[in-house]
Amino acid sequence: MATKIPYKMYLTEEEMPKAWYNVKANMKTQHPPFINPATQKPCTKEDLQAVFCDDCIDQELNETDEYIEIPEGIRNFYTNFRPSPLVRAYFLEKVLDTPAEIYYKFEGNNTSGSHKLNSAAAQAYYAKKQGLTSITTETGAGQWGTALAMASAFYGLNLDVYMVKVSSEQKPYRKEVIRTYGANVIPSPSNTTNAGRKILEQFPGTGGSLGCAISEAVEKAVTTPNCRYVLGSVLDHVLLHQSVIGLESKIALDKYGVTPDVIIGCVGGGSNYGGLIAPYMGERLQGKNNIEFIGVEPASCPSLTRGKFVYDFCDSAQTTPLAKMYTLGCGFMPSPNHAGGLRYHGMSPIVSQLYHDGYMKAVSVEQSRVFDAAVKFAKCEGILPAPESAHAICAAVDEALKCKKEGKKKVILFGLTGTGYFDLAAYKQYNDKTMTDYIPTDADLEKGFDTIPKCAVNEGLL
Amino acid sequence: MATKIPYKMYLTEEEMPKAWYNVKANMKTQHPPFINPATQKPCTKEDLQAVFCDDCIDQELNETDEYIEIPEGIRNFYTNFRPSPLVRAYFLEKVLDTPAEIYYKFEGNNTSGSHKLNSAAAQAYYAKKQGLTSITTETGAGQWGTALAMASAFYGLNLDVYMVKVSSEQKPYRKEVIRTYGANVIPSPSNTTNAGRKILEQFPGTGGSLGCAISEAVEKAVTTPNCRYVLGSVLDHVLLHQSVIGLESKIALDKYGVTPDVIIGCVGGGSNYGGLIAPYMGERLQGKNNIEFIGVEPASCPSLTRGKFVYDFCDSAQTTPLAKMYTLGCGFMPSPNHAGGLRYHGMSPIVSQLYHDGYMKAVSVEQSRVFDAAVKFAKCEGILPAPESAHAICAAVDEALKCKKEGKKKVILFGLTGTGYFDLAAYKQYNDKTMTDYIPTDADLEKGFDTIPKCAVNEGLL
Repeated sequence: MATKIPYKMYLTEEEMPKAWYNVKANMKTQHPPFINPATQKPCTKEDLQAVFCDDCIDQELNETDEYIEIPEGIRNFYTNFRPSPLVRAYFLEKVLDTPAEIYYKFEGNNTSGSHKLNSAAAQAYYAKKQGLTSITTETGAGQWGTALAMASAFYGLNLDVYMVKVSSEQKPYRKEVIRTYGANVIPSPSNTTNAGRKILEQFPGTGGSLGCAISEAVEKAVTTPNCRYVLGSVLDHVLLHQSVIGLESKIALDKYGVTPDVIIGCVGGGSNYGGLIAPYMGERLQGKNNIEFIGVEPASCPSLTRGKFVYDFCDSAQTTPLAKMYTLGCGFMPSPNHAGGLRYHGMSPIVSQLYHDGYMKAVSVEQSRVFDAAVKFAKCEGILPAPESAHAICAAVDEALKCKKEGKKKVILFGLTGTGYFDLAAYKQYNDKTMTDYIPTDADLEKGFDTIPKCAVNEGLL
Repeated sequence: MATKIPYKMYLTEEEMPKAWYNVKANMKTQHPPFINPATQKPCTKEDLQAVFCDDCIDQELNETDEYIEIPEGIRNFYTNFRPSPLVRAYFLEKVLDTPAEIYYKFEGNNTSGSHKLNSAAAQAYYAKKQGLTSITTETGAGQWGTALAMASAFYGLNLDVYMVKVSSEQKPYRKEVIRTYGANVIPSPSNTTNAGRKILEQFPGTGGSLGCAISEAVEKAVTTPNCRYVLGSVLDHVLLHQSVIGLESKIALDKYGVTPDVIIGCVGGGSNYGGLIAPYMGERLQGKNNIEFIGVEPASCPSLTRGKFVYDFCDSAQTTPLAKMYTLGCGFMPSPNHAGGLRYHGMSPIVSQLYHDGYMKAVSVEQSRVFDAAVKFAKCEGILPAPESAHAICAAVDEALKCKKEGKKKVILFGLTGTGYFDLAAYKQYNDKTMTDYIPTDADLEKGFDTIPKCAVNEGLL
């Protein structure tokens, strides 16, 4: 390339995507439909309408349209925090002394501290458009809760956030950000729902889980007038909204004639990675590129690398529809010494299907290596990454060092999903050298698998 | 204007300033020199060399060069976190329903969370260039300490940060960020210096102060081989480095033919505001514009609006040179219920002189109004501001509402110096409605004034 690639590439407002990209339009195998556990039949639009906003359901079920317009009201809010920078990691390349070119798309430069705001903006907009007055959700580490609180404040909606109790205690300041934007934070499990009361009875003193918080938020939504539930990951329409990450990245890189050889991202529920890879995966599915896609998960919560590809509940209280996905079992909870996020038992059905069909790989990494990579990155690239995002850094560093060993000049793109400003308790553990790793044994995993429902779809009867 | 002004203006790397602007070259009255308290004579370069890096001293004493080159090694690090966005506050304008155009330069999109990194980068670079192995500094809220830790990690320097004890206890996570970048954090007052031990004897159990932490850091620097002290505000060379804020703002606005009518910024030590206004003030001093400059300070620490323009120590232990500045007395400490930063007793000599000569105004605001403005801003513009920065927001909102009342279409530019992610304890007070205001009585201030040194310069004998 004659043109020097700048450290940071920002799109102009005119260059920003005006439509999301729907990867399903190019998938040869669609993931199987959601199943209504009561009827054991595929969920209808009507089944979903009690829980989700209408526009989001339409997007969830859309398998045909490649591009779906981003309404002006959402693009307007996007200007609040987008475009995000695509960064050439010159400093990291130098520290690693690698022939590889490394790029990262940084989604953390907003007050939610992560990519979550991309879908929060869309979902709050659609809720408002539908005439709803309030929405509910759950949050674990708090990034999603913050994002939705910001979007709810912007569009003028009431918001109840069920926050995993242990997180609300460990991260009181995350809770405070959410409150500052006007939302109501309820530590989960709580006494405000049947699901919460049931968990509290079964496990008194529990610190809660994301699955349990989901159950509470869904119950609250369906029992409150003019209210719906909003989810921050896993679902197809969330991945659709997150495609803005990949679209912006591709527009920026295309301008410089750069195509990645490898695209790396952390996978928890799968939405950021699904969004980052979307347009590139779309081309791959059409035989237009041969990019290597690598999802990175924690060794302590290895849904892709060690999970089962079956129907499972999306929540631990077993109240949601069943989704066909890689799962550790809806009752799985990672070890308490796991500090690095990405603790969801399942995985986006789209990402699961792509992985199952061999279009992407997955690797798992231990958290001490993840934090090593995080600190190395922070010292040269400046940004203190979220532990979640540092999973991607770790794998990108591994890839760049492999390039060095093999003398290969690959182009690596990874997703830097967020900042670690509210994860300092984990960094303290690392700095104090009290951080430990955890890899579940097969027996540990079996306990989780035992919580996967025995149902018609899993037994091949449907 | 025919061209629509975008929400965010980012300069390209080619457009970024290659030289800082030295406002002193255009000041008709230079601020009086530092005085060595031992000799009661102006500080020589040699006096300063025991404490500061050589290049910084040259810049400190430079009254003639309008532009001073930013070395490539600093511009290189600047690409890590610059350019910062200049934002048109369309959303805030709409919420206020004002005819005014509001712009803000946002310096918080880096891990230090503030503009402080601009000078930290420069000072760490010069320390490394001089062959030093370590530097020391103090930090209050922690933004400066974080910034210098980031810069020290980048350039490879050891760093001791004396952190005001009460801050290190109230903000353990700030401390952890600093540690993550490899710096050593010492709560001040400490037993590691004579200055610290003296304060601990006089005031057992004290939470410390910025002035005391400065004394400790300076003592540590002058008693450690190959080490110098680095200061994050107040001094002329710091304002010089911060001129990058104003230069970038002006380059971006000039492209759209926009000239501010009013430029507003918070003033603590004065460096961010001095930097923001620098190029515009330079033109004003040459009669080329008639911009209104407004510095905003907390009512609880009103150095400009209620202080005295005299020689005072820069630190509470009275070990530094004397500077002619607006001051509340080096022994002044704001009330403990003051949560909003900007708690330094003095003010940059450059800003003091400009204020004294009538080139700028100052206003003071109470913290409950500051937090009102902060939350209003966060909800529409997305960013959760630092309490310090929210002082500027508060005055900008006042100005915009005045425009509305008077039907005037002024152009307002303000400095949004940082984010409030580590100030959630203060936001919690606000959310819980336990925040109180404090305005010192004249008698309170007299106690501070009593700590101003009785010396030859103040008595007109020099």
